[in-house]
Amino acid sequence: MVKNPPVINRLAILGIGLIGSSVSRAARQYGAAARVVAYDTDGDRLARALALGAIDDAAASLEDAVTDADMVVMCAPVGAMGAIARQAAPAMRAGAILSDVGSTKTSVVADVLPVLHQGVHFIPAHPVAGTEKSGPENGFATLFDGRWCILTPPEGADTAAVDLCAAFWRALGSNVDVMTPEHHDTVLAITSHLPHLISYTIVGTVMDLEEHHHWEVFKYAAGGFRDFSRLAGSDPVMWRDVFLNNRDAVLEMLGRFTEDLQALQRAIRWGDAEKLEALFTRTRDARRQIIEARQA
Amino acid sequence: MVKNPPVINRLAILGIGLIGSSVSRAARQYGAAARVVAYDTDGDRLARALALGAIDDAAASLEDAVTDADMVVMCAPVGAMGAIARQAAPAMRAGAILSDVGSTKTSVVADVLPVLHQGVHFIPAHPVAGTEKSGPENGFATLFDGRWCILTPPEGADTAAVDLCAAFWRALGSNVDVMTPEHHDTVLAITSHLPHLISYTIVGTVMDLEEHHHWEVFKYAAGGFRDFSRLAGSDPVMWRDVFLNNRDAVLEMLGRFTEDLQALQRAIRWGDAEKLEALFTRTRDARRQIIEARQA
Repeated sequence: MVKNPPVINRLAILGIGLIGSSVSRAARQYGAAARVVAYDTDGDRLARALALGAIDDAAASLEDAVTDADMVVMCAPVGAMGAIARQAAPAMRAGAILSDVGSTKTSVVADVLPVLHQGVHFIPAHPVAGTEKSGPENGFATLFDGRWCILTPPEGADTAAVDLCAAFWRALGSNVDVMTPEHHDTVLAITSHLPHLISYTIVGTVMDLEEHHHWEVFKYAAGGFRDFSRLAGSDPVMWRDVFLNNRDAVLEMLGRFTEDLQALQRAIRWGDAEKLEALFTRTRDARRQIIEARQA
Repeated sequence: MVKNPPVINRLAILGIGLIGSSVSRAARQYGAAARVVAYDTDGDRLARALALGAIDDAAASLEDAVTDADMVVMCAPVGAMGAIARQAAPAMRAGAILSDVGSTKTSVVADVLPVLHQGVHFIPAHPVAGTEKSGPENGFATLFDGRWCILTPPEGADTAAVDLCAAFWRALGSNVDVMTPEHHDTVLAITSHLPHLISYTIVGTVMDLEEHHHWEVFKYAAGGFRDFSRLAGSDPVMWRDVFLNNRDAVLEMLGRFTEDLQALQRAIRWGDAEKLEALFTRTRDARRQIIEARQA
C-alpha cells in the first residue's frame, strides 16, 4: 500500500474524551496527521490519553497545543466552544484551520466567529458518529469509518481550508457533506437530538417507578428498552449543551412528534386496528432504506 | 458432553415465523425436543421452514400437527391465539401442554382458557427476545440464550406442567421467571411496548416530513435514529395486536412518559441547564445496571 503524505502536518486536539481521542487515534493510524498534540483542562484525562498511546504529545497549556498547529479541532461540549476559541484563536498562526466536532452548528458558529483572529480559518464540522461511552479509554480509530461528517463553513469561508478539512475527514474514513449550519441543526434535531431526548425521558420515567420495579425493567430490557438505555447513557454535559443550543429545532420536532404520539394514543384507546397496522407497515420502509444507506 | 434426554418428546409449533422457527431450531440443536413438527396457515412459509431445515416435519393441517404432540407452542400474533387454541385444543391428547410466546399475557389467558378441553394444560410463556426481522429465514437457535422467559400459569395450573415448560425454556438457554399475567403486562408495557410505540411514532414523524428530507435522515441515522428504526421495523401485525391487547397498561405508561416529556420540553424552552444535566446524569445509572443484568 502506497502511503499518502499526511493531510495535516501538526494537529491539535482540544478536549481528549471519546471523540477527541478517536479523532487522534484515527488521524495517526490512517496517516491523516503527521503529529497529534492534545490539551485538556482535566490533567488526569490528558495523562491517561498519553499513557494509552492515543496522542503523540500532551501540551502543558492550550496555547502550547495550538501555537504551531496547522489544524486545531475543538472536541468539547458545544456550550464551551466559544470560550475555547477565544483562548485558542490569538495563539494560532495565520492560515491555520480551527474546527470542532460539535453536535449543533448554528450556536457554535455564532459563538466562535466573533472571537476569531484574522487569518484563522474556521471550518465547523460534525462527525455523525459516537457511542454512549465517554473518556479516552473508549475512543477507537474506526469510529468515523463509513459514517458521515458534515461541514458547515460560514459564508465566504476559504475554499482551500474547506477542501483540506474535507480531505482530513475522508482520510479518517468518513463521507463528507457540506451544508448550512441551520440546515444541519434541523436535520440533526430529528435524527439525533430528538431520539436522545426521548430516550432520556423514558429511562427517567422508569427511574421514577418504585424501586422494586427497576430491576425487573433492567432484566427484561431486551424487549426494546435496552436500545433507549444505550442512548440515555450518553454524556450528560454534552447533551445538556445540545438541547440548550439547538432549542428551536428540537422543540419544533418535539411538537410534531407529540402530535403524532397523541394520534397513536387515540388509535390505541379506540382500538383502531387498521390505523395502527398502516403506520407500522409504513415505518418498515424506513428501516430498509437505512440499511441501504449502510447506516444501520 | 453428556446429552440429556429431551425435555419434550414431540413438539408442535403453530406459526413458523421468526420466533417459531427459532424455538424449533433451538429445541433441535439443544436436544430439548426429540422431534419438531410445525404447521402454518401460510403454506409457502411452512415449506420454506422445512427446506431450511428449521423443522423435522411440516404437517398438512393444524390437527395433524398437534394430535400426538406432548407440547404445542402457538407462535402467532396475540390476537390470533384464541382462535388457534379453539382449533388445537380438541385435537390434543389429555395431559399435553399448550403454550404460546405472546408478548401480552392477560388477553391471551382470557382468550385461551375458555376454549381449553379438559386435560390440556395451558402454560402461557413469553420469551423476552427477538429481532426486528420476520420469517423463518431469520430465526436462529441462540435467540433465547441468556434471555428471560416469563411463564404466567393460570391459578391452579398443574405444577408438573409448569416445571416441564420451565425445563424446556432452560434447555433453550433461557432464564425462567414466573409471575401473574397482569404483572407481566405492566412490566412489559414499559420495557418493550412503550419503546416500540415511541419508535413507530418517531419514524412515522420522519416519514411525514417532505420527501427530500427522508434520505438525509437515513444518511445521518447513526446519530441515534437507527436504534429507533430498528424497533419500528418489527412485524406490523404482531405489534398491532400487542397494543390492542395491552391497552390499559400501555396507556398508563404512555401517560407517565408524556408528563415527563412535557417537563423536559419546558426545561429546554426555559434553558434550565441544571434540570437537564441532573436527569441525564441519573439515567446513566440505568445503563450500568442493564449491563450488569447482562441484557445490554
